[in-house]
Amino acid sequence: MSYRIAIVGAGAVGCYYGAHLVRAGAEVHFLMRSDLEHVAESGLSIESVSHEDFVVPEVQCHASTEEIGEVDLVVIAIKATHNEVLLELIPPLLGKETCLLTLQNGLGNGEFLAEHFGESRVMGGLCFVCLNRISPGVIKHLGFGLIMMGELCGAATDRTREVGEWFSSSGVACEVVDDLMWASWRKLVWNIPFNGLAILGGGMDVAEILADEDLQILVRQLMLEVIRTAGVLGFEIPESLVEEQVRRTLKMGPYRPSSMVDFTAGREVEVEAIWGEAWRRGEAAGAEVGRLEMMYRLIREKTRSAAV
Amino acid sequence: MSYRIAIVGAGAVGCYYGAHLVRAGAEVHFLMRSDLEHVAESGLSIESVSHEDFVVPEVQCHASTEEIGEVDLVVIAIKATHNEVLLELIPPLLGKETCLLTLQNGLGNGEFLAEHFGESRVMGGLCFVCLNRISPGVIKHLGFGLIMMGELCGAATDRTREVGEWFSSSGVACEVVDDLMWASWRKLVWNIPFNGLAILGGGMDVAEILADEDLQILVRQLMLEVIRTAGVLGFEIPESLVEEQVRRTLKMGPYRPSSMVDFTAGREVEVEAIWGEAWRRGEAAGAEVGRLEMMYRLIREKTRSAAV
Repeated sequence: MSYRIAIVGAGAVGCYYGAHLVRAGAEVHFLMRSDLEHVAESGLSIESVSHEDFVVPEVQCHASTEEIGEVDLVVIAIKATHNEVLLELIPPLLGKETCLLTLQNGLGNGEFLAEHFGESRVMGGLCFVCLNRISPGVIKHLGFGLIMMGELCGAATDRTREVGEWFSSSGVACEVVDDLMWASWRKLVWNIPFNGLAILGGGMDVAEILADEDLQILVRQLMLEVIRTAGVLGFEIPESLVEEQVRRTLKMGPYRPSSMVDFTAGREVEVEAIWGEAWRRGEAAGAEVGRLEMMYRLIREKTRSAAV
Repeated sequence: MSYRIAIVGAGAVGCYYGAHLVRAGAEVHFLMRSDLEHVAESGLSIESVSHEDFVVPEVQCHASTEEIGEVDLVVIAIKATHNEVLLELIPPLLGKETCLLTLQNGLGNGEFLAEHFGESRVMGGLCFVCLNRISPGVIKHLGFGLIMMGELCGAATDRTREVGEWFSSSGVACEVVDDLMWASWRKLVWNIPFNGLAILGGGMDVAEILADEDLQILVRQLMLEVIRTAGVLGFEIPESLVEEQVRRTLKMGPYRPSSMVDFTAGREVEVEAIWGEAWRRGEAAGAEVGRLEMMYRLIREKTRSAAV
C-alpha cells in the first residue's frame, strides 16, 4: 500500500521519526526552513547511543506545503508556541481523508487542530524519546523512542492502528492507545518537573537536577502533584510512576530537556502547552496545583525576561 | 539612668539603630570588623529619604568584645547564618542582668541564644525597615523603621518596656509586644515572598517583582500561605494584611530586599532562618506549605550553586 506523508516541523523529533519512515520505504516529504539546503544536499544523519546510526542520503525537502500537495498523513512537529502558522501550512496538504498527527509537547495542540480542521482528522502521538539536534540534518538520539499514539477523541480505530503500523514497521516502538489524553498526562508527569527545573535551575541537565537533594525532592513532589491532578481529571496514573521515572531518568545521564535547550538558546519555550494548560485544567477541576502554578509563573517570568 | 549597650554586627541594621542610640546620648559600643578603622575615624552617617540625615562623628568602635566588657544590653544584628560566632563573642559582654536583644531576620535566632545563654536573657526585635549599607559607615534609610520588641518567652515585662523606651527616646518607633513570635510571623508575611522572589528572579527589586503580573500573583499567594501557616501554629494574622502589604510595598519604589543584596554580592543568604524554619514549623504542624517548601528548595539550590 502506498501512502504519502508530510513532516511539518523538521526539528529533532520530525527528522528522527521522518528518517525512520524514509528508511522503511515510505514516501515522506519534509517541510524545511533553515536546514533545507543542507539536508537536500547531505540528507539526514541519525546518531544513536542505543541503536545503529544511519544516514538517509536522499530526502525530499520542500520550502512550502503547496509544493508537497495532498498527503495521507501530516506529522506535526513544530513548536507548540507557533501553532498559528499551521493555519496557512496545513490546507495545501489536505485531501478528503488526510489525517493530522501531532507529535507536539503538552496539552492543547490536538484541540487547536480539531478546532480549525475538524476533530475527526486529528490524532496525537506522545514521544517518549531523548533527542537533540546537534547540527543541520544531524540528530543525536540519546535514548528511548516509544510513541504512544491515539485518536484525539475516542478510542483507537483501524486508522490509528494503520498509522501506528507505519511507524512500527519503520523500527520505531509504537503503542496504540485508547486514551490519548491519559497518555498526555502520563508524559507531563516527566516533562513538568524536569523541563521546568532545568529552566529554573538556569540551564541544568537531568543528571544535575537529580544530583541536587532539594531539586530531587521537588521532582518527586511535582510528579505526585501532576499524577493527582490527572486523577482529579479522570486519568488514573499510579503513584508508583514517580519512582519508576526517577530510576529511568537516572540512567539518562546528562540529558538536556528540550525546553531547556530552547531556553538557553534564547528560543521560545512551550510554557503554555506544558505548564499553563496543565495548571489551568487542574485548577478548573479543583485539584491542588499550588506547586504547578508556582512553577508556571516562575517560568513565565523567567522566559519573558530572557526574551527582553 | 546610665546604661551600656553593645552592638554586635555592625551592618545596616546595627549601625542604623546604634547611631540613633548614640545620638540620644547612650553609651554604645560597636563591635566592628572591616569597617572599624573607617568608622572610628569618620563616624556613622545616616542618609534618609524620610527623616533628617545625621552624622554621629564619634563612635566607640572595638575589635573584640573583651575590649567592651560587661554591658546592660547586647544588640545582635549579625547575619543569622553566622550565629555560631556568638558563642565566642557574647560571654565577655555578660553580667548578671545583661539582656540579649536579637534584631535578626527570621525564626530560630532567639531560640539559639536561649539555648546557650538562658532564655530569661533573651528579647527580640522585629525591624520593619528598609536599609541598605552603601559604603563603610554610611547607611541609606529608605523607609519605615518600626521595631516590634518583645520577650522571647512570655509577655512584655518592665524590662521590655525599659529597653523599648531606650529605643523610642532615640527617635526610633518602637512598639512593645506581648507575643514576639506572632510579630515574627507577621514580618515573614513580607520577607518570605519578597526576599525569595527577588532571589529567584535573579536579583529583582520589589518594584520589578510587583510590576510582573505572575510574580505579583505569587507574592499574594505566598503571603496567604504564610498567614494561614501562622494561623495553624496559633498566631492569628488577618488575611487583609496581604493587600495592605502590597499597597505599602508599591510605595517603596525599587527597594532591594536584604537577602537579594546578599545574594547578588555573593554573600551567604539567611535561607534557613527565613524559609527553612518557617517551612519546617508549618510542615510539622500540618499546615499546607507546598509553595513555601518549593521556594525554600529552589533558593537552597540557587544559593548553593552560586556559592560554588
